[in-house]
Amino acid sequence: MNISILGGGGFLGRKIATRLAQSGTIGARPVTGLTLFDLHEPPPLDAPFPVTRLAGDIVALPETAIPPGTDIIFHLAAVVSAQAEADYDLGRRVNLRGNDAVVDACRRIVANGGRPPRVVFTSSVASFSGGQSANLADDARQLPANSYGAQKAAAELILADASRRGFMDTVSLRLPTVIVRPGRHNNAASSVFSAIIREPLLGLSTELPVPDNFAAWVCSPRTATSWLLHAGALDTSALGLSRGINPPGISVTIAQLLNGLEQVKPGAAALVRLVPDPAIAAIVGTWPSRFTPVRALALGFAPHEPVVELIRAFVEDDLAATKADRGIAI
Amino acid sequence: MNISILGGGGFLGRKIATRLAQSGTIGARPVTGLTLFDLHEPPPLDAPFPVTRLAGDIVALPETAIPPGTDIIFHLAAVVSAQAEADYDLGRRVNLRGNDAVVDACRRIVANGGRPPRVVFTSSVASFSGGQSANLADDARQLPANSYGAQKAAAELILADASRRGFMDTVSLRLPTVIVRPGRHNNAASSVFSAIIREPLLGLSTELPVPDNFAAWVCSPRTATSWLLHAGALDTSALGLSRGINPPGISVTIAQLLNGLEQVKPGAAALVRLVPDPAIAAIVGTWPSRFTPVRALALGFAPHEPVVELIRAFVEDDLAATKADRGIAI
Repeated sequence: MNISILGGGGFLGRKIATRLAQSGTIGARPVTGLTLFDLHEPPPLDAPFPVTRLAGDIVALPETAIPPGTDIIFHLAAVVSAQAEADYDLGRRVNLRGNDAVVDACRRIVANGGRPPRVVFTSSVASFSGGQSANLADDARQLPANSYGAQKAAAELILADASRRGFMDTVSLRLPTVIVRPGRHNNAASSVFSAIIREPLLGLSTELPVPDNFAAWVCSPRTATSWLLHAGALDTSALGLSRGINPPGISVTIAQLLNGLEQVKPGAAALVRLVPDPAIAAIVGTWPSRFTPVRALALGFAPHEPVVELIRAFVEDDLAATKADRGIAI
Repeated sequence: MNISILGGGGFLGRKIATRLAQSGTIGARPVTGLTLFDLHEPPPLDAPFPVTRLAGDIVALPETAIPPGTDIIFHLAAVVSAQAEADYDLGRRVNLRGNDAVVDACRRIVANGGRPPRVVFTSSVASFSGGQSANLADDARQLPANSYGAQKAAAELILADASRRGFMDTVSLRLPTVIVRPGRHNNAASSVFSAIIREPLLGLSTELPVPDNFAAWVCSPRTATSWLLHAGALDTSALGLSRGINPPGISVTIAQLLNGLEQVKPGAAALVRLVPDPAIAAIVGTWPSRFTPVRALALGFAPHEPVVELIRAFVEDDLAATKADRGIAI
């Protein structure tokens, strides 16, 4: 299988690439080539198959980013929530015009006699609203309360239509808030849910912008990566027009996260201090706190591990690299 | 009120313009100026207020099409269903890039200190699926089975987000199939529902591509125009994020339409001959045949007249002009 990862230098893109390099397969079929595309050239990857690394603009997507013969595209390139809210033009450009560029690349492949590539698109819980009281069914409508979510939902519609037309074969995963992210705060409003675990594990204090009983729909990077790989090899024949899938995340409160943190590193939760931030609360407060993901489980998407395992996964997978990255002694 | 109609030379655009000219008001407030914009220059309009007529490309929308001080924009410019299905690039260009141009025009007005214009957007029943067995609630998700519907649903998301951001104040009306349309078949797949009434009333035979018991969700141009004008003056403070409204059309079968035709012109239904057309059936067969439009009625959108009145409205409003247009003696 020839695979391209758009956003291949980002957090989830690198996780997918690493997992493919480790297994050498996707859906029990050998990976024969991998192209990593991002705004900046993705880092080298040690893999049992050829790896091409490319830098460029998703809107002016070079043909080499999705070469002829591409079987699977992981389409992760995006301007995230707080940034898309702050810069409307940039969000629209990357999240919508960039999406059109992916459609056109797939059209070219099909027009030249190739098979429609599988496109695994990372949509988001932010494309829904409903807030703390919500518990959304699989057929809930997307009524986003932020530009990022609106652009993701619109892109889903365009990709589903392109699939119906035979340009591609899309699976759109509405990812929960992915925690724990390494590095520093990024421009995602949801970045705070990572910070309250990551910073105390680094021995650093951090601010909590929402109260203890605030609930969020989350998943670990490890499980998100498993879902994305599963979507890459999924039998899509039963999906019909409905290409958007709500994967089986978990609904956790801040208190449950901090309790899990205490189990992994006793005393760490004391480093988290409540400092209400209305701007952050306004964005994340609209996102639904719970889904009932019946369809995803039936389609074989892995159920989520308990919250303590999610925190341990960060310690195992990302803590050392995060420390090194931030110049903190291991 | 200063009003612009994008697609002001089209069937519904001209109906709105004529109604405004007749009443001189919208929502009990005087109309002070009207701009009609279309691909070709709209025809002259006799009105008690200044009327500007402009030709141009919606994607390269001239500033004069939505001048400073515009209070209400009727955004009707579109590439319709069969054409958007046949020409993907054209549909995407007009239905999505054209929509962005409207957003940007409103942003300019607001950036220059103006009030966010009311935007009345014509979305469509084609943005839903479900087919003959469907009866959709107000919160049903849009799962389009055609490019036109996908582009309309995506545009709704972008306009709702632009409203949330304060660039505009949108009401998106998901219009049922509008019958009876004058003129000849256009590129809308739904054109056939007009033809089976219009052609027999002109004394001409016509083909029916779907069976007698096929049900469609329809409305008259007269009632559609009333809804659009109501949306132009609606108090939107209670809409929240949900800017899309399913207006109260009626669900009718082909048999009911032909029965109504017989009441208006006995013997006319004999001019309709069943000639199944799988391409047309494939498009219209996915559209839901029924909605339960509770919200629209609560918001004051007029309930629909019975089917016989719908046919009589065509005879009163459009039959003479249609005959003249097609060189048929009155």
